[in-house]
Amino acid sequence: MAHALRLAERGLYTTHPNPRVGCVIAHGEQVVGAGYHLRAGEPHAEVHALREAGDKARGATAYVTLEPCAHHGRTPPCADALVAAGVSRVVIAAEDPFPQVAGRGIGKLREAGITVDAGLMREAARELNIGFFSRIERGRPWVRVKLAMSLDGRTGLANGESKWITGEAARADVQRWRARSSAILTGSGTVLADNPQLTVRLPDGESFTPPWRVVLDHRLRTPLGHHVLDGAMPTLVLHNEQYTPHDARYQAVELAVVKEKGGAMDLHAVMDLLARRHISEVHVEAGPSLCGSLFAAGLVDELLLYVAPVLLGDSARPLLGLPSLTDMASRWKLRTIDRRVLDEDMRLLLRPVT
Amino acid sequence: MAHALRLAERGLYTTHPNPRVGCVIAHGEQVVGAGYHLRAGEPHAEVHALREAGDKARGATAYVTLEPCAHHGRTPPCADALVAAGVSRVVIAAEDPFPQVAGRGIGKLREAGITVDAGLMREAARELNIGFFSRIERGRPWVRVKLAMSLDGRTGLANGESKWITGEAARADVQRWRARSSAILTGSGTVLADNPQLTVRLPDGESFTPPWRVVLDHRLRTPLGHHVLDGAMPTLVLHNEQYTPHDARYQAVELAVVKEKGGAMDLHAVMDLLARRHISEVHVEAGPSLCGSLFAAGLVDELLLYVAPVLLGDSARPLLGLPSLTDMASRWKLRTIDRRVLDEDMRLLLRPVT
Repeated sequence: MAHALRLAERGLYTTHPNPRVGCVIAHGEQVVGAGYHLRAGEPHAEVHALREAGDKARGATAYVTLEPCAHHGRTPPCADALVAAGVSRVVIAAEDPFPQVAGRGIGKLREAGITVDAGLMREAARELNIGFFSRIERGRPWVRVKLAMSLDGRTGLANGESKWITGEAARADVQRWRARSSAILTGSGTVLADNPQLTVRLPDGESFTPPWRVVLDHRLRTPLGHHVLDGAMPTLVLHNEQYTPHDARYQAVELAVVKEKGGAMDLHAVMDLLARRHISEVHVEAGPSLCGSLFAAGLVDELLLYVAPVLLGDSARPLLGLPSLTDMASRWKLRTIDRRVLDEDMRLLLRPVT
Repeated sequence: MAHALRLAERGLYTTHPNPRVGCVIAHGEQVVGAGYHLRAGEPHAEVHALREAGDKARGATAYVTLEPCAHHGRTPPCADALVAAGVSRVVIAAEDPFPQVAGRGIGKLREAGITVDAGLMREAARELNIGFFSRIERGRPWVRVKLAMSLDGRTGLANGESKWITGEAARADVQRWRARSSAILTGSGTVLADNPQLTVRLPDGESFTPPWRVVLDHRLRTPLGHHVLDGAMPTLVLHNEQYTPHDARYQAVELAVVKEKGGAMDLHAVMDLLARRHISEVHVEAGPSLCGSLFAAGLVDELLLYVAPVLLGDSARPLLGLPSLTDMASRWKLRTIDRRVLDEDMRLLLRPVT
């Protein structure tokens, strides 16, 4: 299963909106077929593995990181393919939460007399597709907020200058998190201040399915000629219904209306909309105000924090705009998932304790 | 020498104002004597090791972490003792910077026909006595600023509440840094706001030489009954000459006058005064304003930073009050010396890049 998970990971940058899935077919220790899902519309992991195994699939055990599909989508059901190939046992890491599959894949296999065991390395398999599970099970994407700060928790100078707090290794690392996301979300404040490209730049030869750029632009303030409107990536601009696109600025992008809540864009409605558009993982790169609002709304699932060993002082820009606290007991607590050193910088991955 | 350094470390909490020194006497791999300096006024490391070695010291090699003394202080010169014991070789990690020793110990040994090698693990030996070297070579103590903060670089709430950001392991760790210091320095602002004890609390049975409590109390504002005036530890209150102690508050403490500079206490003068009083390592626990002033004055040698996985928001108290920056190039850069995990918290040790 560990082998199958490593294979599944190869689809990290390419499978969305589909989950990353790996499959290994073996007789005891001897692997006779292995494969992974590469891209939506292309064959699933099981199909690749079965093709490689050929006749040797008969009587073998198939290790699959996600419950095989039982429905006809863009490809025929993998459960049927496993039955047809004559495997005698299927070991599944995580059950598929998708309503059209949920247990039906396992059912089909068992009806055909195949032994099915589920749950081996389930946690790791779910982590690999955390956005997919979030979208199907919770109806909203997994939201990861990326922030780069100084030791004293500052993201930029008072005058707005914020390039570059962290070093090259940290910035290259960010590109990988962008690549694995289904969408990169920002606010009009950041667009106006920094005019970011929010594209994905991976080393040569590494392929990825371009994520959506999503701009929360309440009042449609983004000026013509700003990078996010250039059509270099699929782009979605969310705005309030009071404002209508009246000029040529939006030719290369899609627009959608999101309702207001208390004078600001309703962030829960934003996430609903993104989930309906099959966005599984949202990577947020925005200013302290949007990031803080997402956090205060309980919509942040993960904080990806780069810390550079520099000090910017107390007049510099804060990390997050959050409501003022009156007692220490109400502080926002997080759990550290991962700590890593990237040259001189540090990378922390944290999740709010709920 | 590694063995001698480990022995020297046993004096970490007790030798000040003396340096921590370890000594191992050996014939090849066979150790015949070992010792370390425990407390000022008591025998030096070499004396303990020579006593244990007895006659076996003859023809042996002595490994000493610091150049043996050549002068009569409270104990007779160790260089003479090594000569008298008949060791044939002395290996020294770091040369003694003290004017009354500096090279004279090595000279005495060589004059007696002993082979002397210096520099083995010199860096580690100097690190162990970084305050001692700083005081003798630079004329000022090694200043370590301890700060505990949230992920977003906040040390307390806007209303002043600051207990407890970090967990028990981090707080117990702080006690060890206090114990190894010659002085714990704070400002009157912190005393008035938090009434800290600034004592050392180590697990039972661990001994230490109590560091000085040093309070920068410019205008002698500390009220009667505050912990720092209770005499539980040797305490030094520094104030401006315009203010004179006119009441019973200061019976249990020492007072000293420090000149002003630009309306505030001259922090360079403070460090001069502490060095003259044989203070080698200063551990600072103070608010963002004093810590920031020390930093801006170039007097901070080390930042001991505890980071708790919590968020306090942008209205909470900043880490350091520092002059406002106009460009990113002038940011204060630090080098990370050590990273450690203490339960849920992180500990970083950093030094400004000069």
